[in-house]
Amino acid sequence: MEHLTAADATACILEKVQPLGTEIVSLQHALGRVLADDVLANRNQPPYDVSAMDGFALRSDDLGYVPVVLLVIEDIKAGDMPTFSLQPGQCARIMTGAPLPHGADTVLRVEDTTPLPNNQVQINASVSAGNDIRRMGESMQEGEAILTAGSEISAGAVGLLAMVKRRNVTVYRRPRVAILSTGDELEGLDEPLDPNKIPDANSYALMAQLQALGIEPTLLGIARDEPHELARFLERGLMYDVLLVSGGTSVGVHDYVRPTIEALGVNMHFWRVAIRPGHPLAFGTTDQTVVFGLPGNPVSSMVCFEEFVLPALRKILGHPRLFRRSLYAHLAHPIKHRPGRTEFVRVRLSKDHLGNHIAHATGTQSSGVLNSMAHADGLLIVPEQHEGLSKGEMAMVQLLDSSLYQDAQDH
Amino acid sequence: MEHLTAADATACILEKVQPLGTEIVSLQHALGRVLADDVLANRNQPPYDVSAMDGFALRSDDLGYVPVVLLVIEDIKAGDMPTFSLQPGQCARIMTGAPLPHGADTVLRVEDTTPLPNNQVQINASVSAGNDIRRMGESMQEGEAILTAGSEISAGAVGLLAMVKRRNVTVYRRPRVAILSTGDELEGLDEPLDPNKIPDANSYALMAQLQALGIEPTLLGIARDEPHELARFLERGLMYDVLLVSGGTSVGVHDYVRPTIEALGVNMHFWRVAIRPGHPLAFGTTDQTVVFGLPGNPVSSMVCFEEFVLPALRKILGHPRLFRRSLYAHLAHPIKHRPGRTEFVRVRLSKDHLGNHIAHATGTQSSGVLNSMAHADGLLIVPEQHEGLSKGEMAMVQLLDSSLYQDAQDH
Repeated sequence: MEHLTAADATACILEKVQPLGTEIVSLQHALGRVLADDVLANRNQPPYDVSAMDGFALRSDDLGYVPVVLLVIEDIKAGDMPTFSLQPGQCARIMTGAPLPHGADTVLRVEDTTPLPNNQVQINASVSAGNDIRRMGESMQEGEAILTAGSEISAGAVGLLAMVKRRNVTVYRRPRVAILSTGDELEGLDEPLDPNKIPDANSYALMAQLQALGIEPTLLGIARDEPHELARFLERGLMYDVLLVSGGTSVGVHDYVRPTIEALGVNMHFWRVAIRPGHPLAFGTTDQTVVFGLPGNPVSSMVCFEEFVLPALRKILGHPRLFRRSLYAHLAHPIKHRPGRTEFVRVRLSKDHLGNHIAHATGTQSSGVLNSMAHADGLLIVPEQHEGLSKGEMAMVQLLDSSLYQDAQDH
Repeated sequence: MEHLTAADATACILEKVQPLGTEIVSLQHALGRVLADDVLANRNQPPYDVSAMDGFALRSDDLGYVPVVLLVIEDIKAGDMPTFSLQPGQCARIMTGAPLPHGADTVLRVEDTTPLPNNQVQINASVSAGNDIRRMGESMQEGEAILTAGSEISAGAVGLLAMVKRRNVTVYRRPRVAILSTGDELEGLDEPLDPNKIPDANSYALMAQLQALGIEPTLLGIARDEPHELARFLERGLMYDVLLVSGGTSVGVHDYVRPTIEALGVNMHFWRVAIRPGHPLAFGTTDQTVVFGLPGNPVSSMVCFEEFVLPALRKILGHPRLFRRSLYAHLAHPIKHRPGRTEFVRVRLSKDHLGNHIAHATGTQSSGVLNSMAHADGLLIVPEQHEGLSKGEMAMVQLLDSSLYQDAQDH
């Protein structure tokens, strides 16, 4: 059977998935969601010209020669409205965010002044008109779209939504996702330990990968290698928006997943992709459910999730950016590669003294060893036709969640 | 008053904060937490030598000349135990993860074989002893620490925990965090719109920044510029592990925060840091509470959170890595800079055709314009003594959460 390239598999998947619809969430639950509507400003911000500094509101005409002494006729703080108009030789003490008094055309920060007795202040520096003033509507103008449909709601966007008093927002709804593990050899988390069995790690690793995307999945459990039991489980899974089935999609003779899933009316688009780890990756759809058949091996399953399921879920969630960020890293050691499949090497990142990223493989890359994934910062990509990479060579590394942090701070 | 450098401020803060204690959480709630104890393997994995492929378990002695025809004496699938011992000329059909039969010393994948009638198979390729076998204990050996105290629980680690049947784990507890906004000019989210007031965006932007770290904060609301009201709010805030106070820490005459907070017995370690935006940053401690005084300006407040509060919270949460990952990007345009303060320019990242990151400032960098933060992927660092940066020059960019994804996939 033909193996699709990773890029062709991704294109096939993304062509077939779409956002599901919208829902309304409160601001407290909006972080990370994607806006389904434009958000319009409900006010001018600032509502008038305001000071950008704590200091003095002045007439720039008075600053021809400095130092100069001015009379402080008023204190204006944020939230106040000025009561006087500045005359020549006068100024007003003003706080950040407070409105400029009539007659003032510039602001000088308090650090450039010296307080004097009798409501006077000595001005030690000259500034031109317009200094340290935030103009009316500079941050937002009433009616303008401050956030557009399709934007991810970052922490800054949450602040912006609060600024326009949006206590609720319309976002794309999250898919309901079910996880099914298959195989007689698997032992459930709640079952007693049997040394001849393999604990079901896949259900939980996939659960965590989904949780990182803000999706709380349903774990359907373990379906045994028996066609009727499997069919019952799969039918339940096909009631969800997305079904992840791990195990049972390889070419072995004991594999009931393929015929069972096809008998249930799932239109399977492909069964294999030329990547390592993880090539027995299957993808199918019904009218309402997207089905991924993931390898039984936990590392392979996690890599397939990263490469193929994650972009599909990001598209369903309405995100404009579907793929993991990647960066170049220098290899700490050579990496062997047999041409024919795109390989994803689990690496940990460090930095050299110049701030360049260095990639170290996380121990043995056997696809059975979940440790390699547990400690990885990223997946280093060895392209399909490469013969291998040498020490020091640069390669692209897709960043995993834990890579968002590093040991030392750059200043 | 002296301005601390950003690096000195960070060092001062990190010296004074510590993890708070531990708690037990279920596997379902473990993602992103930090282990407080080592996790030991409760089994050997695999429990015996198993096949790494779907194929045939063989005696390598039989592969001297290929193709060769062997007799298939048994089917072994994962979860089965073999019943026969292989004799010369015999092999067993074997599934990935299934135990090797006695006498077999290698595995050949099914793709390199041709099925024949009468329980025979033609072997088309030769492999040496040990091929495609996963050895007993290769993934984990009973009693070894598979995850050590202080490790962040990644999705892969959740899989590993399931593999050793840990339904609950001991992790560092999260700090209880309170947020207080101060200022007469502020308008609460639930108050009617008053064009002369400034909506309280800080409380919500900070809430979202905390949520991104897995912390659900308490919003205390808005304290007005009145010493007794402020004291009452601050007293309430000092019942939390961490108190974030925004606004009111500048040097203006209307500033009641500083005397009020000191009167409540908070030991203030510094009040200002030489960064832009955000220099009026204050830091203090009591026996039980860590207090940050953040600028009233939302962008400044968010930047100070990123630079100073986030590493402190990461340390309290037990994380080994405290700081945002940074990477080099080329500037899409020149950036002006007045030496004296470390500047954090909000940038969006794109990639050129070679895969290098390009940084674009997110519109106006006025610290009043929260839009610049809402759409930022990172904070580009202009070092304290720099005179500015020119187009194409490389600079370090600290990644924000939304930077984890990009438009196109690398393969």
